[in-house]
Amino acid sequence: VEGRVLKLTLEYDGTGFRGWARQPGARTIEGVVRNALSAVYPTWDGLAVAGRTDAGVHATGQVASVSVQGGPPPERAPDALNAALPGDVVVAAAEHAPDGFHARFSARARAYRYRILRRRIRSPFAEHRALWWPRPLDLDALRESAALLPGKHDFRAFTPTETQHDVLTRTVLAAGWEEHDEELHFTIAADSFLRHMVRTLVGTMLEGRDLAPLLQGQPRSDGGMTAPACGLYLERVEY
Amino acid sequence: VEGRVLKLTLEYDGTGFRGWARQPGARTIEGVVRNALSAVYPTWDGLAVAGRTDAGVHATGQVASVSVQGGPPPERAPDALNAALPGDVVVAAAEHAPDGFHARFSARARAYRYRILRRRIRSPFAEHRALWWPRPLDLDALRESAALLPGKHDFRAFTPTETQHDVLTRTVLAAGWEEHDEELHFTIAADSFLRHMVRTLVGTMLEGRDLAPLLQGQPRSDGGMTAPACGLYLERVEY
Repeated sequence: VEGRVLKLTLEYDGTGFRGWARQPGARTIEGVVRNALSAVYPTWDGLAVAGRTDAGVHATGQVASVSVQGGPPPERAPDALNAALPGDVVVAAAEHAPDGFHARFSARARAYRYRILRRRIRSPFAEHRALWWPRPLDLDALRESAALLPGKHDFRAFTPTETQHDVLTRTVLAAGWEEHDEELHFTIAADSFLRHMVRTLVGTMLEGRDLAPLLQGQPRSDGGMTAPACGLYLERVEY
Repeated sequence: VEGRVLKLTLEYDGTGFRGWARQPGARTIEGVVRNALSAVYPTWDGLAVAGRTDAGVHATGQVASVSVQGGPPPERAPDALNAALPGDVVVAAAEHAPDGFHARFSARARAYRYRILRRRIRSPFAEHRALWWPRPLDLDALRESAALLPGKHDFRAFTPTETQHDVLTRTVLAAGWEEHDEELHFTIAADSFLRHMVRTLVGTMLEGRDLAPLLQGQPRSDGGMTAPACGLYLERVEY
């Protein structure tokens, strides 16, 4: 399609979805976004996304790109698309992107947040939105672990062996733990991420494991557990 | 039942419920709490609640009382009951109450919060949890309205005509508006509340109406709209 390239910023509650990527018979974010695009644009093509989030993972700053012809101007695209989207997905912003812009390949960095609810009793409001962790956590130790992450490492200990990644090194730009009332948040930014990488880093840190040896290309079997999807948020993509 | 009186503090996401009160064929908070009590206590009786919340209304500090025999000691009641409750209801605390304690009749005051999301684009995370209000709001005017509320007034303009209340006056102890990032919250405490009273106060203020004449016993037809249930939280009950 010869048309305008749109950059869309998306927010979604991943609870009701089998992740981003379209699958037959499953409710996916890509599926509902494609339906909305078809309702709003006479012609569109080449939908791409910065981070193909897994089932149950949320986004507050996912970015998609798509070529469109006809339809509303970019400043009216969010309202038009939101009218065609279900309540758990929203287009927060839309703008023209330069020719050749691709949400995934043009991205220089992604930032994720992992939310942990640390109280003894679970919360109905954090259900599906944060990991409930009633046991004690050593925040100093968690911070020491996070401090090891910036830089270029081989992260194969933190991604399923069967996942097909050509390159298993990634460059972490920043990582840390923040306290927010009853919650503890792990934040991490990197050039890109291996599948399950944030969740497995969180799971391994929660086990109290020493990350240092694992960052040197140890096999997956040496890594820790994969924390549940519900705590993870794709927060920002940088271009 | 001759037994201990328990005071339970409950939190719930009201989205999936037809309100507190048990109804045949409907999922209600009372219904799931009764099931949990039966799973944990050999004998129990006299379940009462401070505020019989409507369908879709949430609670962060609801209080219930119940007489129990046998079962776990109060300090272990939350975990035992929570294991038998669905994810959208939780017992946050349990303690022995004095003989004769009744969650509703012993309550001296209740406090509610109404959450308004004021951004142009709706949020997937605030869906069912706050009223989305994309239009401008005059916070000064809202605060002037709230300042009229403390004291004893006839609130019949703010409750459905068909509701059976013997007395239509209530004493408001405090009321105000708070800003929380992208949200605006109305908070109000009173000895007790008429049905729909908080929601209709909010709806009337959002319409920009002058509350002063309405607080003198005007009929319901003079009051404003009833704001949706999803923004309302029963936050605290005082004894």
